[in-house]
Amino acid sequence: MQDLEITFLGTGSAVPLPNRGHPSIHLRYSGYRFLWDCGEGTQVQLRRAKLSSLKISHVFITHWHGDHFLGLPGLIQSMNLEGRTKSLVVFGPKGIDEFMPRILELGYYDKTYEVEYWEAKPGILWETEEFTVSAFPVEHGTPAVGYVFQEKPKRKMLEDKLRELGIPRGPLWGELQRGNEIEWEGKIIGPEQVTLEIPGRKIVYTGDTRPCEATIEAAKDADLLIHDATFSHDVLERAKETWHSTAREAGRIAREAGVKQLVLTGFSKRYKDEELVKLWEEARKEFDNVVIARDLEKVVL
Amino acid sequence: MQDLEITFLGTGSAVPLPNRGHPSIHLRYSGYRFLWDCGEGTQVQLRRAKLSSLKISHVFITHWHGDHFLGLPGLIQSMNLEGRTKSLVVFGPKGIDEFMPRILELGYYDKTYEVEYWEAKPGILWETEEFTVSAFPVEHGTPAVGYVFQEKPKRKMLEDKLRELGIPRGPLWGELQRGNEIEWEGKIIGPEQVTLEIPGRKIVYTGDTRPCEATIEAAKDADLLIHDATFSHDVLERAKETWHSTAREAGRIAREAGVKQLVLTGFSKRYKDEELVKLWEEARKEFDNVVIARDLEKVVL
Repeated sequence: MQDLEITFLGTGSAVPLPNRGHPSIHLRYSGYRFLWDCGEGTQVQLRRAKLSSLKISHVFITHWHGDHFLGLPGLIQSMNLEGRTKSLVVFGPKGIDEFMPRILELGYYDKTYEVEYWEAKPGILWETEEFTVSAFPVEHGTPAVGYVFQEKPKRKMLEDKLRELGIPRGPLWGELQRGNEIEWEGKIIGPEQVTLEIPGRKIVYTGDTRPCEATIEAAKDADLLIHDATFSHDVLERAKETWHSTAREAGRIAREAGVKQLVLTGFSKRYKDEELVKLWEEARKEFDNVVIARDLEKVVL
Repeated sequence: MQDLEITFLGTGSAVPLPNRGHPSIHLRYSGYRFLWDCGEGTQVQLRRAKLSSLKISHVFITHWHGDHFLGLPGLIQSMNLEGRTKSLVVFGPKGIDEFMPRILELGYYDKTYEVEYWEAKPGILWETEEFTVSAFPVEHGTPAVGYVFQEKPKRKMLEDKLRELGIPRGPLWGELQRGNEIEWEGKIIGPEQVTLEIPGRKIVYTGDTRPCEATIEAAKDADLLIHDATFSHDVLERAKETWHSTAREAGRIAREAGVKQLVLTGFSKRYKDEELVKLWEEARKEFDNVVIARDLEKVVL
């Protein structure tokens, strides 16, 4: 199974702290490297995490508040300096046609590669044989989306059963693996008889949002839900005013979506590192498997 | 005497390293706080240096390469979040009327204060009773300036001499301190007879540049010259191609300008921290009093 590696480059919110940068998450899967959000300082964080910026294929921006995308102009320009030639694909919600032209025309630099950009409308944005990336709408008082990485299911060949039926290794195996029926010695053999379907992994990132139904739906049975947890529940009103979530609310969403693990991120600067345990405890009242994201930490699924 | 405090927030060049950020220098003098350049990450560096971004009165950008100004959008937006009301003044060379409107319209945010901006044409840009800030043209293959902070001279009253002449403390002393002649007991008393002129301090920052006459002229007798030293002299051709200086060239400029101290900055990522001593040794062949700038170091004059 391919490694699916998630690196938290920045786990802060609007005002960055020295050890808690503006939001950015790096996903590595197969030949693909994505950024989910790209706050100021992302290019240095990539370097700290020993991740190559040149290998990033796609950037997905959740919304157009500066803390979520102001690392993009510098990242794009540095990749020019380093001689990138491969085009870069950027997705973001409504507003992208207004902001990307400005992002691409900040200062003088030579362009060595193309930057393509499209609006991230709800639904599938990118699809390969191995996975899809989709957007879903979230509630942040400004056009905002969350993102879903969904690995496609794989079929493991049950060799004992295939041998029992006498089906020879070759094109017929390929058909079955792709999920198609075959005819063998006058009988129809379905893939469910001789293969085991392994469900694909699913990672969901909300960006900044109030807790919402769309997240529960998008995160159904996800392996990992990375959810806004800017505040603790004792300042719920502040969370509502600023269209963020409390850790407790993130816990409830994780439980209702039936995810395997919840990662809290997007912490307000009001919480010192040692106080984040309070947010963890709070989310744990709603859901068991909770992790606090910290800058430069990796999760491998 | 007022402290004149210079903090190096970023001492790198085009590609930032974890311990050597994009260029920015903080100057504190009297009630004023300036930034000279504002590369990506400046807002976090200010926080690391325990300097308040809200107190910054002026930002002076040397040129419109991203590494010298891409921290500005985030800094401006964060100051809004923190409730700044005092206007901010930004100077930069030709191009400012094109780039500042884009910088100010990156993403959605509420504006709580005004950002005023003007082109930094050679000559005095800002003058108070205590100092001037001027721009001078440098050579970087793009519109680019350096900046001079010049404290005005002060007159120290020589009390013994004043008593000897019998001039009473009061308005006459004030006239002499402002550098004017007075009449006392039928005689003209010049300020040079009863006061000592203390020359003002002068700090010069080149930004990125080839060594040039304009810097020698601007830096004449400066207390501190902060000069581009991106490369060592063994890659002089590379320095020429990219419109930067070598450490040795910076040393020559310091000598020819007759400055008191030279600070080298703007180092290429090709030099590890421990290799910067090589650049120091090289500059020392031309000029004695050389310092290597490092991120978050302060100089107090």
